[in-house]
Amino acid sequence: PERTKDSEAHGLKGSYSIEELTGSLTKPRIVWLMIPAGKSVDEVIESLKGLLQKGDIIIDGGNSFYRDTVRRHRDLERLDINYLDVGVSGGIWGLKEGYCLMIGGKKEVYEFVEPVLKTLAQEDGYLYCGPAGSGHFVKMVHNGIEYALMEAYGEGFDLLRHSPYGEGLDLARIAHLWNHGSVVRSWLLELLASALERNRDLEGIAGYVEDSGEGRWTVQEAVELGVSVPSISISLFRRFRSREADSFAEKVLSALRKEFGGHPVRKKQD
Amino acid sequence: PERTKDSEAHGLKGSYSIEELTGSLTKPRIVWLMIPAGKSVDEVIESLKGLLQKGDIIIDGGNSFYRDTVRRHRDLERLDINYLDVGVSGGIWGLKEGYCLMIGGKKEVYEFVEPVLKTLAQEDGYLYCGPAGSGHFVKMVHNGIEYALMEAYGEGFDLLRHSPYGEGLDLARIAHLWNHGSVVRSWLLELLASALERNRDLEGIAGYVEDSGEGRWTVQEAVELGVSVPSISISLFRRFRSREADSFAEKVLSALRKEFGGHPVRKKQD
Repeated sequence: PERTKDSEAHGLKGSYSIEELTGSLTKPRIVWLMIPAGKSVDEVIESLKGLLQKGDIIIDGGNSFYRDTVRRHRDLERLDINYLDVGVSGGIWGLKEGYCLMIGGKKEVYEFVEPVLKTLAQEDGYLYCGPAGSGHFVKMVHNGIEYALMEAYGEGFDLLRHSPYGEGLDLARIAHLWNHGSVVRSWLLELLASALERNRDLEGIAGYVEDSGEGRWTVQEAVELGVSVPSISISLFRRFRSREADSFAEKVLSALRKEFGGHPVRKKQD
Repeated sequence: PERTKDSEAHGLKGSYSIEELTGSLTKPRIVWLMIPAGKSVDEVIESLKGLLQKGDIIIDGGNSFYRDTVRRHRDLERLDINYLDVGVSGGIWGLKEGYCLMIGGKKEVYEFVEPVLKTLAQEDGYLYCGPAGSGHFVKMVHNGIEYALMEAYGEGFDLLRHSPYGEGLDLARIAHLWNHGSVVRSWLLELLASALERNRDLEGIAGYVEDSGEGRWTVQEAVELGVSVPSISISLFRRFRSREADSFAEKVLSALRKEFGGHPVRKKQD
């Protein structure tokens, strides 16, 4: 309720329950969900089912797995409730720069909602991708690419950091430079340049990298579809590795080197 | 000589031999080499040695391996000829948009040449990286990152192409869309969008990918320095694989599956 109160202070009309929300909208109602993927989406849809009517629209703007999205489209179709999947990219900068929206669902539902999408998006920043789930599918692949792009910069800057020129190379200035006319310029590199300008050694930042699902789904779908995505896979697996202080795989390697070659094993420091 | 004549027609002053070139410049002379890495750079430097004098400057603007560059710096230092390594990025678009230049060598030589660099570069598009070879080192890592970025987009668009939505997904419009507010926007993605807009199925383009050295050096240096660069390595190895109609590694795999599991072997079609 505090968040809703804050929003009201900014001039938005708030609701304190789903019933109050659906009761306050004119028909056909549009309910835009922006919640974490998984069970919570199903739960909210379940509670909306009894409150919405034929012709109303639910939009899932979160990062849902596209197969779940297809199932939800079908499920709601039986009640004549329309569903739209909208993959949203742009991060916290989207508010200022406009979002990038990837839309899946029935074309006529998309067309009805288009003015909203147009308002949220950057110019040219929204696209009707195709039938149910295609918006989330495209967003999933987008995020898979994002993982691999981040990995590419991570590896490159790691190499610069360990270069024979050592501390002599100014990583912040190199990142800034590369955004001015080089082939590797990108928005991610702009973010990295500003992170390095504020904190040249990335001090206080742990090399512990979370993931939020889309990278896993991208790799799982690639396996399902028989498409080779080695760099996206490696980017995902690097994140898993980053979360372990001590890797069992690496213990196995160390133990095996000792077994067959008598190589010394480094003892764990406690 | 035809190229030189063409350039003269555009108002440039041409020379038809290295002797004519070095004879026509005022001292200290600046000779900028823009030739393929390797032996040819050494050959041209060798022929310049007898023609240049103390205080003259040779600039290597090509993609030389930075260890060769360090050796050339040292070699020319004995003759008091100055050497500067300038990694150049920007491709054929640099002419219009300004290049991105990474400079290594003596600071005072860099400062003397700076007006030239400033003219060629985009605003903020040139950087003195450090001592001899550091410009080419930074350029090498830049290109390693470039390989991995290209691989990331390659994998992602391959997955879109094989999606359950099949031909329904418009890859050209998705590439265009992602450049408007998404996290994966970049200059490479702009190039891909325009390539796909012109040729939606990339018809007539063979999946045969050359490399020109920097990717190999990046991986070799990473091995030398003990830095983990799996996605850059994979991008390089994908290029090697792309050049073989039939991979011997894959024949081995196929043969082994037959040996231990009796799995049928697909016969080679001639």
